[in-house]
Amino acid sequence: MSNNKPRAIVLSVGTELTEGIILNSHLQYLSSCLNRLGFMVIRGIQIPDILGVFKAELGRAAEECSLIIVTGGLGPTSDDLTREAIAEAAGTELVFQQSIWEDLKKRYSGQKIAETNRKQAYIPQGFKILKNPVGSAPGFYGRINKSLIIALPGPPGELEAMYTSGVERLIENLFSLTVEQVLTGTAMLIPESRLEEELQKCPGRSVTWGTRVTDDRIAFYLRGGSEEERKAVFSCLQESFGSLYIRRGDVEPAQLLSRALRSQGLKIALAESCTGGLLGKWLTDLPGSSDIFWGGVTAYSIQAKIDLLGIDNRLVAEYGAVSSETAAAMTEAILKHCQADVGLAVTGIAGPGGGTAQKPVGTVWISFKWGDRKPLCRLFQFHGSRDQIRRKTAVAAFLLAESELKG
Amino acid sequence: MSNNKPRAIVLSVGTELTEGIILNSHLQYLSSCLNRLGFMVIRGIQIPDILGVFKAELGRAAEECSLIIVTGGLGPTSDDLTREAIAEAAGTELVFQQSIWEDLKKRYSGQKIAETNRKQAYIPQGFKILKNPVGSAPGFYGRINKSLIIALPGPPGELEAMYTSGVERLIENLFSLTVEQVLTGTAMLIPESRLEEELQKCPGRSVTWGTRVTDDRIAFYLRGGSEEERKAVFSCLQESFGSLYIRRGDVEPAQLLSRALRSQGLKIALAESCTGGLLGKWLTDLPGSSDIFWGGVTAYSIQAKIDLLGIDNRLVAEYGAVSSETAAAMTEAILKHCQADVGLAVTGIAGPGGGTAQKPVGTVWISFKWGDRKPLCRLFQFHGSRDQIRRKTAVAAFLLAESELKG
Repeated sequence: MSNNKPRAIVLSVGTELTEGIILNSHLQYLSSCLNRLGFMVIRGIQIPDILGVFKAELGRAAEECSLIIVTGGLGPTSDDLTREAIAEAAGTELVFQQSIWEDLKKRYSGQKIAETNRKQAYIPQGFKILKNPVGSAPGFYGRINKSLIIALPGPPGELEAMYTSGVERLIENLFSLTVEQVLTGTAMLIPESRLEEELQKCPGRSVTWGTRVTDDRIAFYLRGGSEEERKAVFSCLQESFGSLYIRRGDVEPAQLLSRALRSQGLKIALAESCTGGLLGKWLTDLPGSSDIFWGGVTAYSIQAKIDLLGIDNRLVAEYGAVSSETAAAMTEAILKHCQADVGLAVTGIAGPGGGTAQKPVGTVWISFKWGDRKPLCRLFQFHGSRDQIRRKTAVAAFLLAESELKG
Repeated sequence: MSNNKPRAIVLSVGTELTEGIILNSHLQYLSSCLNRLGFMVIRGIQIPDILGVFKAELGRAAEECSLIIVTGGLGPTSDDLTREAIAEAAGTELVFQQSIWEDLKKRYSGQKIAETNRKQAYIPQGFKILKNPVGSAPGFYGRINKSLIIALPGPPGELEAMYTSGVERLIENLFSLTVEQVLTGTAMLIPESRLEEELQKCPGRSVTWGTRVTDDRIAFYLRGGSEEERKAVFSCLQESFGSLYIRRGDVEPAQLLSRALRSQGLKIALAESCTGGLLGKWLTDLPGSSDIFWGGVTAYSIQAKIDLLGIDNRLVAEYGAVSSETAAAMTEAILKHCQADVGLAVTGIAGPGGGTAQKPVGTVWISFKWGDRKPLCRLFQFHGSRDQIRRKTAVAAFLLAESELKG
C-alpha cells in the first residue's frame, strides 16, 4: 500500500448507526469510490448524534487527511448536527442561504413547509452548496485548515445520486490523481494460508497482494510491478492450484456455471442430497436463471432417492447412499425424468453426525452428466463445519460442471 | 442517551473494508448487541491493515471507553496484524499457546497444516483465549490500561457464533451489568417502521425497546417496567400483527417449523418454485434435519412442474403457474410421490422480471397439505428485491406450516 496516495476519511453520523438499528452502507460505497479515485481511506467511522464526539472526530480527521466526507445529520431535526459541528470545527458561523430556502420551498410546493426546515438553509460561512437532485437536504463543501470537507445527506439514494452527479468530478478536479492498475482474481476451495504460502513463492518481487475472504471464495488483488509481473504471479498461482480453482476477476461459482450454460444455450437439472437445496438456491439467486435452470430433486433421505428419483434400492443397499454408483444413478435419473441438457448430482455426509471410519464427515461424491454421455464422478473430502462442507460441496459441483461444459 | 452507561468502541480491521471491497456488517451486529447489554457505543471504526494506524486507534480507544471489541486481522497471513497491534498497545509480548496449536492441528486433521498457521497460536501475554467453535482462528481478551479488549475473527459466521456462545456472557460477568429483565420477541414479515409505530401505541409507559434487524426477521427487546407491563406490550403487538408474526424469544422460522414437526414425529416434503431450493437449504441448515425433512422437488420451470411433479399442463395453462390451483396441485403431487406426512409448496414471482399487472413481482402462493386433508392455500404480496421476496416467501411458508401443525 503506497503512502504517497492522498488520504481520506469517511465519517457517518447517526445514533441509529451506533445503536445498531441500521446498517451503514456508506462506508463501503464511499470507500470503494475513493479507492478507485486513488485515495487511501485511512479510517471509516460512525458516531452517535453527540456534538462533542462529532467535533473531536472532525478536528482529528482534519489533521490526518486531505479529504473528509461526512454523511448524515443534514435533516431538519434537533439531532441533525452536521452543520453546527462543521461550522464550529472550521471556526466559522452558519449563514442563511436564500437560494437553498427557495429550492426547499419549491420542493415542498403544494405542501406546507415546516418551519424546522429553515434550518436546512444554513451552511457554514465560506462553504459552497452541493445541490441535491433527489431530496430536501443540500450538501456543502469547504475547508477545515488544509482538508477538503464534503457533507452529504444520509439517505443512500440521495447520497449516491449526489456523488455520481457532481461530487466525484469535484474531487477529481480539486485533487490530481493517478489510477492504479490491479489484477483481480478468485481462489476457490483453497485455504487462505495455503494461498498466501504460494503467493510468497511466486516471482514478481514488486507485486503486492490483498485478499478478501468470504464464506465461499477468496478474491485477491495483485498490485504494483508491471502488468507482465502481475500476470506472471497469477499464472504461477494457476500452476500451483490448477486453473479450476484460480480464476480471473472477482467471480462466484454460480455465475461461472450460469455463464457456461448460457453461452451454449443449455439447461441444467439438479439432484441434491446433503446440500438440501443449496445448489438450486445459488443458481436461482441470479435473476433470469430460468434460462439455464430447469429444476431438480432434493433427495435428502434414502427413500427420496428411491421414490422421487427411482433409484434401485439394491444399488443403494450395495454401495451406500454416498458412493460413485449412487451419484451416477442420481444424474442418470434426473436426466431421465426431465428435459434438461445436463445433470448435476451431489451426495455426501455434511455432519456433524453420520460419519464412519470409511466414509468420514465431509465425504462427498459429485456426478455430472451431459446428454447421453457417461456420467463423470468425482470424490471430495472436505473439512469444516456442516455449513462449510455444504458450501464447499456446492462450489466444487459448480466448478466441476463448468469445466466439463467448457471442455 | 444516558451518560452513565459504560462506553464501548467497535474497531474493525481490514484493507478490504477501507477499500470498499466488502461491507462491514460487524459494526451493526456488535453495536446492536452492546446496546442491548446497556453500553453506549461511542464509535464504530474501520481501518486498513496498517500497524501504525491500528496502534493509534487502540491507544485512543483505551482512553475513551471501558470496552473495545476488535474484529478481523486474526488470520494466518502477513496482513493479519491484530495480535501484534494489541500486544504492542498493551505493552506486552506475544506468547505461543500450545493448546491453540493443538486445536489448530486437530481442526486440520488429515490435511497438511501450513507453517504460517503457527502464527495463529500466539496471543498477547496475560491475555486469555476465546475458543472459536467454527473456524481456525481463536479470539482472545485482556486489558489495555483499564479497558477490556476482546479480539474476534472477521468471518461473520465465526464472529457471531463466538459472540453468542460465550462472549456475551463474558461481558455480562466482567462488567457486572445489572442485567435488566428483558422480554425478547421476534417479529417476522413486519417492516421495522410499522413495528416501531405499534410499539409507540402500546401501553406500558415505562417499557422501552430495542431491536436487532436481520435479513429475515427483527428481534426485539422489551425492557423496564414490570413483568406484567412488558407482557402487556408483547400481547398488544400480537393483537396488532397476529400471533403468527410476533413470537416469544429470538427464533428463526426454520427452527419453529422443525420443532413443530419433531414434536409430532412428522416428516415434511417440499415443492419449491420461485425459491429454487431455499426452503430445503434452510431446513437442512439444522443438524439432524433428516428426522423431519424427507426431500423435495424444485419445480422451477413450468415443464418441471409437469414432468417432475406430474401436474396437469391444462391446469397450469388455465390458472397460471402462480395460482392457488397450481400451488394446491404441487402439494397434492409431492405427497403422492413421496412418503412424507405433510407437504409444503410455494410458487411465485421473485422478479425482477416476470411480473404482470394482475400478478406483479412479489405475488406468491403458498400451499400446505397434511395427509389426506384438503390443501390450505394462501396468497401473499411481498415487496423488495428478488432476494428479499424469496426470503419472505420462505419465512411465510414456514410460519404457515408451523401454525397449521400446532392447530
